[in-house]
Amino acid sequence: MGTRIGLGLLGLGTVGAGVAEILQNPEGRHPLIGELELVRVAVRDLQRSRPVELPAAVLTTDPETVVDDPAVQVVVEVMGGIEPARTLIMRAIAAGKSVVTANKAVIAHHGEEIASAAAAAGVYVLIEAAVGGGIPIIEPLKQSLGGNRIERVSGIINGTTNYILTRMAQEGAAYQAVLKDAQDLGYAEADPAADVEGLDAADKIAILSGLAFGGPIERAAIPTQGISTLQSRDVDYAKQLGYVVKLLAVAERLQTTTQDQTSLPLALRVQPTLIPNEHPLAGVNGVNNAILVEGDPIGRVMFYGPGAGAGPTASAVVADILNIAGIRQLENANGCLDPLLAANSWRACHLVHPNAIQQRNYVRFKAKNAPGVIGQIGNCFGACDISIQSIVQFDASEADAEIVVITHEVSQGQMHDALKAITNLPEIKGLIAHLGCL
Amino acid sequence: MGTRIGLGLLGLGTVGAGVAEILQNPEGRHPLIGELELVRVAVRDLQRSRPVELPAAVLTTDPETVVDDPAVQVVVEVMGGIEPARTLIMRAIAAGKSVVTANKAVIAHHGEEIASAAAAAGVYVLIEAAVGGGIPIIEPLKQSLGGNRIERVSGIINGTTNYILTRMAQEGAAYQAVLKDAQDLGYAEADPAADVEGLDAADKIAILSGLAFGGPIERAAIPTQGISTLQSRDVDYAKQLGYVVKLLAVAERLQTTTQDQTSLPLALRVQPTLIPNEHPLAGVNGVNNAILVEGDPIGRVMFYGPGAGAGPTASAVVADILNIAGIRQLENANGCLDPLLAANSWRACHLVHPNAIQQRNYVRFKAKNAPGVIGQIGNCFGACDISIQSIVQFDASEADAEIVVITHEVSQGQMHDALKAITNLPEIKGLIAHLGCL
Repeated sequence: MGTRIGLGLLGLGTVGAGVAEILQNPEGRHPLIGELELVRVAVRDLQRSRPVELPAAVLTTDPETVVDDPAVQVVVEVMGGIEPARTLIMRAIAAGKSVVTANKAVIAHHGEEIASAAAAAGVYVLIEAAVGGGIPIIEPLKQSLGGNRIERVSGIINGTTNYILTRMAQEGAAYQAVLKDAQDLGYAEADPAADVEGLDAADKIAILSGLAFGGPIERAAIPTQGISTLQSRDVDYAKQLGYVVKLLAVAERLQTTTQDQTSLPLALRVQPTLIPNEHPLAGVNGVNNAILVEGDPIGRVMFYGPGAGAGPTASAVVADILNIAGIRQLENANGCLDPLLAANSWRACHLVHPNAIQQRNYVRFKAKNAPGVIGQIGNCFGACDISIQSIVQFDASEADAEIVVITHEVSQGQMHDALKAITNLPEIKGLIAHLGCL
Repeated sequence: MGTRIGLGLLGLGTVGAGVAEILQNPEGRHPLIGELELVRVAVRDLQRSRPVELPAAVLTTDPETVVDDPAVQVVVEVMGGIEPARTLIMRAIAAGKSVVTANKAVIAHHGEEIASAAAAAGVYVLIEAAVGGGIPIIEPLKQSLGGNRIERVSGIINGTTNYILTRMAQEGAAYQAVLKDAQDLGYAEADPAADVEGLDAADKIAILSGLAFGGPIERAAIPTQGISTLQSRDVDYAKQLGYVVKLLAVAERLQTTTQDQTSLPLALRVQPTLIPNEHPLAGVNGVNNAILVEGDPIGRVMFYGPGAGAGPTASAVVADILNIAGIRQLENANGCLDPLLAANSWRACHLVHPNAIQQRNYVRFKAKNAPGVIGQIGNCFGACDISIQSIVQFDASEADAEIVVITHEVSQGQMHDALKAITNLPEIKGLIAHLGCL
């Protein structure tokens, strides 16, 4: 060791301050931390008081001067948002500097552009903090699981919605009430759309799939259903049937057909999903995240931990900085990159049409409380060749009945046909809920 | 890419065959697999039939020729046992070849010798497969968690005992009966001592601690209690109190005192331990393993998956091979190693005396069924300044009572004093069980 490495930090919010705090307190951490020097830090407001003390000369309100500073060798982007983050990252790459970022939105939407620029410039862009907060998941997908043929990646990867769903399940509380609490506690943003509509989880599953399956993912094509219309009644019925409801992101590889020889077909989705109580993901509560990776020959491994927060996210950012610092100890004569760490795409992937996605389903109908309704529903599913695991009638009042159906695995196309036929029945007043089911 | 890497495999048992199978079927795995070539393989018997087909010219019964073959650049040791594995590993290092090994015994007992030789020779010795089967845990401890000050590593890291304990808990079965089943199913060896006496778990926690805390661990000094004398009655009482019993390996850093300035004090132990039902480790069943890492600022992360088996272990071995192959793509002009991947010790650690270990305890006494016994037990604990969480009397027959005590956290020295005083009481017939408790 002995080569000091100059860092430029873009952003000094909670994550940026967490990173600075680790760097200022190296005792008991990996000694390579001692080689890292915070050279320049871009902030929005020089006057604002902060949890970390930094020399005034280090701070600037101009992020470009951080990127351009010749003493900055690695640029750490923790400002968030698409712009100016994207432009600054591209500028750093163009200057031959490796980048560490916690910015899932910029990677999910512009990952390919950024990756090609990085490959051309011979620098790394590392993103451990972009998914799963502090949980090491990017690094294992890139390196430790490289011998596997990954079959499926599924996970609870949004802490805000998991906090809300955990409280809905434990207290029988309504979505709106818990959301308000979560906002008061700082677990949800004033505008919660990115979290509760599943957009953040979709960004993250796009990133995980790209690494797990080796090809870029069309972010905009991921079918995404959030939790903002989820009713506590469905959480309760799920519980009575032995399930918990989680916002689950799933990516699985499908059988390659003859047309697909040049591109791997994948099914991706983000959806509130019933998870059986005995499943390893069922016990993941509060703001925790967990990612389950299934592959050959490993079987199933799960990574669990805090999915957000200054400390965990800073831990992941520093892990990436250390990786770059570690590899910089090698005097690299040929300008090549470690292909595992660089993790460039190595094949083409494409998302199949949402109708082709195979999954189990939970649906709830409101029906007239009339004899024979369950039989008619069963007939409609049968006519569409859909096997049913259970039909249960809940809460029959004088006029209305609530009928919950859990299907076996079936394509969403078949499912839509069946649901159309069922909602056309005169006894059916409406399809109230349609969730996934593991 | 483009540099082919010659591998020499020492051993073609289940793990070795699993590795060969991955190499022979690269489709859908990381493309770097295609750069790996199995050049020489040492087997015990050339005639034996095997699940993988290899050209006859590749096989040899002389492991030294594998190590010495100039076409072999990386030596993969999957034969197990201390010798000749240790000698062959040292020989490979001396020849300037990096080593991948799944051999926890050799690393736990000779890790320091091997690490210094590797550092001197400028080669890597990677050991992902030595702990936790397929679970990526070595790599995260070396790289992804490097920004943290690790406080505690605890885990269920022996699949055989976890299989036995899971069945004891689920069926109320006796240890001996389940052990016999486990042996018939191939989950336990004919001589099960290394597993059931906790020696394998102690090897593994020594390895994990070395990486988590940065210094070599005196393997022989780890207090180790197995499950061979565990009674199903204690598993049952634990269940009634809201716990499961697991063979838990724990390593924690203690407060540094003035005497310890040059060395970090650690408390390590392997012991059957009660785990509260709601704890993330409580749901780890069968041959699965899980390791919980706690540190600052990450909080708590857990790694879960199959702790043994050909496929998972081969996945970990191949991960290490890929790591070496990846870094070899860099033309390394100065002969340095990536300090994270090399993971050499960076400070001194020492184990505190077992009497200084602080933990909660579960103890069970057989006592005369006489009034006042519980009070006397309570008095003895009180006299030794030990707080009690609960005293419960189970199964009082005419003559005998079974009294179970769960203490708050207390040093094992205090605990021994109290237990001595209690077992000297005329009403106490014996101390039947003493387990840990989270």
